[in-house]
Amino acid sequence: MSYSSIGQRFVLTSFGESHGRCIGAVVDGCPAGLELEEKDIQKMLDLRKPGQSIVTTQRKEEDKVEILSGTFRGYTTGAPIAMIIWNQDKKSKDYENLIVKPRPGHSDYPAFIKYRGFNDYRGGGRFSGRLTATFVMAGAIARKLLSKTLDIDTYSYTSQVGKIKMKNQATPKMKNAIYSNEVRCPDTKIAEKMRAAILAARRSGDSVGGLIESITLNVPVGLGEPIFGSLESDLSRALYSIPAVKGIEFGSGFYGSTIKGSENNDEYIIKNGKIATKTNNAGGILGGLSTGMPIVLRVAFKPASSIAKKQNTIDLKTKKPVSLIVEGRHDPCVVPRAPPVVDSLVSLVLADHAIRSGLIPSVLK
Amino acid sequence: MSYSSIGQRFVLTSFGESHGRCIGAVVDGCPAGLELEEKDIQKMLDLRKPGQSIVTTQRKEEDKVEILSGTFRGYTTGAPIAMIIWNQDKKSKDYENLIVKPRPGHSDYPAFIKYRGFNDYRGGGRFSGRLTATFVMAGAIARKLLSKTLDIDTYSYTSQVGKIKMKNQATPKMKNAIYSNEVRCPDTKIAEKMRAAILAARRSGDSVGGLIESITLNVPVGLGEPIFGSLESDLSRALYSIPAVKGIEFGSGFYGSTIKGSENNDEYIIKNGKIATKTNNAGGILGGLSTGMPIVLRVAFKPASSIAKKQNTIDLKTKKPVSLIVEGRHDPCVVPRAPPVVDSLVSLVLADHAIRSGLIPSVLK
Amino acid sequence: MSYSSIGQRFVLTSFGESHGRCIGAVVDGCPAGLELEEKDIQKMLDLRKPGQSIVTTQRKEEDKVEILSGTFRGYTTGAPIAMIIWNQDKKSKDYENLIVKPRPGHSDYPAFIKYRGFNDYRGGGRFSGRLTATFVMAGAIARKLLSKTLDIDTYSYTSQVGKIKMKNQATPKMKNAIYSNEVRCPDTKIAEKMRAAILAARRSGDSVGGLIESITLNVPVGLGEPIFGSLESDLSRALYSIPAVKGIEFGSGFYGSTIKGSENNDEYIIKNGKIATKTNNAGGILGGLSTGMPIVLRVAFKPASSIAKKQNTIDLKTKKPVSLIVEGRHDPCVVPRAPPVVDSLVSLVLADHAIRSGLIPSVLK
Amino acid sequence: MSYSSIGQRFVLTSFGESHGRCIGAVVDGCPAGLELEEKDIQKMLDLRKPGQSIVTTQRKEEDKVEILSGTFRGYTTGAPIAMIIWNQDKKSKDYENLIVKPRPGHSDYPAFIKYRGFNDYRGGGRFSGRLTATFVMAGAIARKLLSKTLDIDTYSYTSQVGKIKMKNQATPKMKNAIYSNEVRCPDTKIAEKMRAAILAARRSGDSVGGLIESITLNVPVGLGEPIFGSLESDLSRALYSIPAVKGIEFGSGFYGSTIKGSENNDEYIIKNGKIATKTNNAGGILGGLSTGMPIVLRVAFKPASSIAKKQNTIDLKTKKPVSLIVEGRHDPCVVPRAPPVVDSLVSLVLADHAIRSGLIPSVLK
Repeated sequence: MSYSSIGQRFVLTSFGESHGRCIGAVVDGCPAGLELEEKDIQKMLDLRKPGQSIVTTQRKEEDKVEILSGTFRGYTTGAPIAMIIWNQDKKSKDYENLIVKPRPGHSDYPAFIKYRGFNDYRGGGRFSGRLTATFVMAGAIARKLLSKTLDIDTYSYTSQVGKIKMKNQATPKMKNAIYSNEVRCPDTKIAEKMRAAILAARRSGDSVGGLIESITLNVPVGLGEPIFGSLESDLSRALYSIPAVKGIEFGSGFYGSTIKGSENNDEYIIKNGKIATKTNNAGGILGGLSTGMPIVLRVAFKPASSIAKKQNTIDLKTKKPVSLIVEGRHDPCVVPRAPPVVDSLVSLVLADHAIRSGLIPSVLK
Repeated sequence: MSYSSIGQRFVLTSFGESHGRCIGAVVDGCPAGLELEEKDIQKMLDLRKPGQSIVTTQRKEEDKVEILSGTFRGYTTGAPIAMIIWNQDKKSKDYENLIVKPRPGHSDYPAFIKYRGFNDYRGGGRFSGRLTATFVMAGAIARKLLSKTLDIDTYSYTSQVGKIKMKNQATPKMKNAIYSNEVRCPDTKIAEKMRAAILAARRSGDSVGGLIESITLNVPVGLGEPIFGSLESDLSRALYSIPAVKGIEFGSGFYGSTIKGSENNDEYIIKNGKIATKTNNAGGILGGLSTGMPIVLRVAFKPASSIAKKQNTIDLKTKKPVSLIVEGRHDPCVVPRAPPVVDSLVSLVLADHAIRSGLIPSVLK
Repeated sequence: MSYSSIGQRFVLTSFGESHGRCIGAVVDGCPAGLELEEKDIQKMLDLRKPGQSIVTTQRKEEDKVEILSGTFRGYTTGAPIAMIIWNQDKKSKDYENLIVKPRPGHSDYPAFIKYRGFNDYRGGGRFSGRLTATFVMAGAIARKLLSKTLDIDTYSYTSQVGKIKMKNQATPKMKNAIYSNEVRCPDTKIAEKMRAAILAARRSGDSVGGLIESITLNVPVGLGEPIFGSLESDLSRALYSIPAVKGIEFGSGFYGSTIKGSENNDEYIIKNGKIATKTNNAGGILGGLSTGMPIVLRVAFKPASSIAKKQNTIDLKTKKPVSLIVEGRHDPCVVPRAPPVVDSLVSLVLADHAIRSGLIPSVLK
Repeated sequence: MSYSSIGQRFVLTSFGESHGRCIGAVVDGCPAGLELEEKDIQKMLDLRKPGQSIVTTQRKEEDKVEILSGTFRGYTTGAPIAMIIWNQDKKSKDYENLIVKPRPGHSDYPAFIKYRGFNDYRGGGRFSGRLTATFVMAGAIARKLLSKTLDIDTYSYTSQVGKIKMKNQATPKMKNAIYSNEVRCPDTKIAEKMRAAILAARRSGDSVGGLIESITLNVPVGLGEPIFGSLESDLSRALYSIPAVKGIEFGSGFYGSTIKGSENNDEYIIKNGKIATKTNNAGGILGGLSTGMPIVLRVAFKPASSIAKKQNTIDLKTKKPVSLIVEGRHDPCVVPRAPPVVDSLVSLVLADHAIRSGLIPSVLK
């Protein structure tokens, strides 16, 4: 199987480079009969695009998606849905001198060794965060499919920037507040502090990291497959394809490792006439299978590697130490652009499992 | 592809149940010409087996591996290597009443809904930690292959139990101390405190969680594949197949999200005539590719779900609340048994990528 | 994916060697809730085993299948079903001198080059026809599943031996006559002539080839997937895994290439109140999809390569011409043993597609 | 895995519809460092395009390929190579009335049932022969790769039209004559007769079928993988994705089934200092592995289903018999357009196996 593809039944193949002609996605396995127009996808793409606010990069990108195949008279046909975004003119010369002076924290060095200089390094090429737009193209379809058929609903938000963090998980009611501010944090007071922290980092030519928390409601019981198809396995595999992600945890996660079994186990109760658990330290997943409780996960992003400060590196030709300042306009914090990307990948994985389990038919009525 | 399989070129297929006739592994894609005997595998299996110490379960299991196919005159042939461990007599009646009274923290409830009662629930069936022995069967081969061909060396150890943790990463010199104590912590003083914490949990009928830290040396630069085959994606997918794992991080991981880019970036230097980085906050992986620095990751295990305390659950037949005490002898902490499992899965993933990249030929000379 | 595996949802992984300890099959993806015992599989295995008659090899093999996993209280559990046949003592020395003197028509030469001598060449190793018993183990399950859920019924038979052939396709009524004679031809008069032809070949130390014709009834309309998952693609891929197969055709096949479109097109009619076609030159497949008409295919087997006549070959060590007589007891014609193998592979492919299409649920009620 | 994809290491994903916006191909797994321009692909595409001669359809299509990603400064980068052909304006109304009146021999009926009317039926949609252009886009790359690295050379030609056939296989010297005539038959006298047969069929509003013979030189010994990755399995799977193919055979194929083992076995000899076989009834493949002899296969195409004669069918709405005349300009014989398609698919399969076997590195020097 291609490493540019993910999924078994709802399969995304991603192509394109940051500064090439275009980026694109091919989705195969979407059931026939789903109403689908470009605006369904554009809406979600617009939430991740740069140049929207002061806290992210000032680059302006008009990311207009075009559907090239797989729909007919406004509905999906069951055939692969190819989508494309044409790249606008890029300032590629910014990157010319980076070939032999690898930037700390970027893929430059291992990519140069792996491809012996043949890779398109402009703007990060295949390794650029820009490719996450292809995840969103596919994810928007998956999300609509899950919503229409199973009423599954995913929402993700910035829960931490640097050392500033939300105290509690966002409730479903807080969903609408996520995109009310630039940092995508539904707690508006905390959002204000996060914004200040990002601006402070920018002013000092530095960057900050943070966390995305993702919550998915209404997942039917029993999605996921032992041994190697646990929801945690498939979700983490998908989420680690986002550049800058260095940690993923489910439910009580790392904190759960420090407490007792009697504190971490979720006891079963009846709630609104249905089986539920009193707490949700499992993050909605036991034995790799969904429990029916909300799926809760957190994704740790490192601080953006492109900073305006002078850094030490090695000239790959001369093998001598040199210093480097990364030019260009960069995100001082990538986290605020990540919520739609996380939503997309979660939706892709769940759609894949829901189709596989027979919960979504191959043709919608 | 089967969800009981993992890997693209070095492929493990895992079968069997906790209390069925056997557990087994089929490894396909191992190059021909690797010297391989049962004792190569048995050695590593012995490190995870229960009944070895006071801190883990008192069950006695004689896990004797048999190679059924794929070797000839002491060498691998290129054909699938099937391996098996026959299960000894099990006390299956311990589990009989669990069918309708799902244990908190276990897969009982979602598995019952998913399989409508047809799954072999005895001893956890397919969801049992016992299946990790099949990972070790395959992992022992992968590890030997990586060692012989590329001198790659993985070592994993208990770095935290409950709130007790090592201060620093274990150096390569400390490797030999890992199996010198029951908790598999190379810092013997910390190990003593961990042991006490586990015994305290046992005495109170409770359990504790903890962390495994894993370090891999000598990984060549450039293993891993964009977009969906990053080393983080493939390693995390594999590691989340271990029951009880709820968090995974690489390098500075979650902590890295709280610091500045200028603090987290690893500057390039020349060390012993080779390109290296001054720090290793990336955990040896940038852009999903190995950098040549040690691969460093941490795996968070929740506290074992089987505890001797009374817990509340729901009777699935009557839909009424009932209480439950989980009988049987269980691990008060599963972490000490996990190091060979983590070593195995890391080795499987790296072998798969090394073969794919052409670094290991299809026949060893 | 492993080349020892086939299928996407109903996946067979085959392991073992002709003269190794065992041969085995792991089936993953069989729905839970199918009644399954060893005798279901044994019955079909018995139809292909050698030593049953004068027209096939005189070797006696007791091929007793054991189910190792994946069933519980007589039903499938949804977990992988591992099955094994222990090999009896083999006369391996028969093959010792073949290593360096490749037998014409066998895989000896390319296998020696490919594996540089590491492959287990005894009895053909992985290339032996004996491995088709692993197809039957899995196929027996697939066939029962298709029969129980969709009433699909496959029957295959010897339609040609050397130049002796049946005039017409066997009707469903003739099914029961297939195993009434040693050559597995439902036309008993033709069967008698085929038998004579095989015996004549044996007497002269030679071998003959022939055709298997396979017919499958009650396939629902629309199985198969464009572009690369046409039923013809998946069926032929599976069937070419049988050693000695060198041709496959569907419906009018090669003959159809010689006639006009107006003669070959199957016009639509109403028959018994349902849409059908007047003729079935398409062999039940159009555009790669099942049409609801019987799936009809023919498989061409070359004459067995092991013959008692002296043949010329090259000594791989000396690079000199030498002559060779293949010792041992061999099938003068492999075709009579092939019907259950063809039935099995057809069933595997159809079960895979039926599950994928949602026509068979993941748990049978 | 997606059914719109083929290959394990050199992977083609095909998208688009006959009368949609475009058709396209994504090739993943092509090594970095291969010189590649659009004209490399266009050259091969031009050989299959319609409107070139009197014997094929009179439709004019300007099939101009554009490379969208995966190359940089004239070389492949190791990233997925996306390619596209924009569809010209189509006369889609020709097909409007076919929705409910399925054409005999076409996929209309099973596709209607499978997709319940959601599929894009215009011009055959996903089932159109036009999609074979996406095979050629990818195949042109594979062919160039095989030629540059291993000197592998594939040539395919029309060896039979209706009942008119070549007496012998085309020798390598005859290669250049293939495209010297409209029917793509290197024997110019036979070509003339084939041309007359096609024109006669056209005049009578009918169509004819035929065979493509394909020969591949210089394949290294040992490509192919037991059990389910035999070259025959992978080649036939690929070739059956061409619409209208109903039979495939290798070497002596169906004829081989009628002769004796002593006649069909290929004895080993030394030729030009290398091991070879005296005859090549195996078609260059034994045990599923390449023998070093030319790979020889034949592909049977049914007569084109679109004919100008009146045919009987059923109205799917009324369930009543109706008659039908297929409008539009169609190929009276598709065989002359197939040689580049067969060359492409053969090249794709061999490139996939050669990369997998380590015979082609991941970066060309």
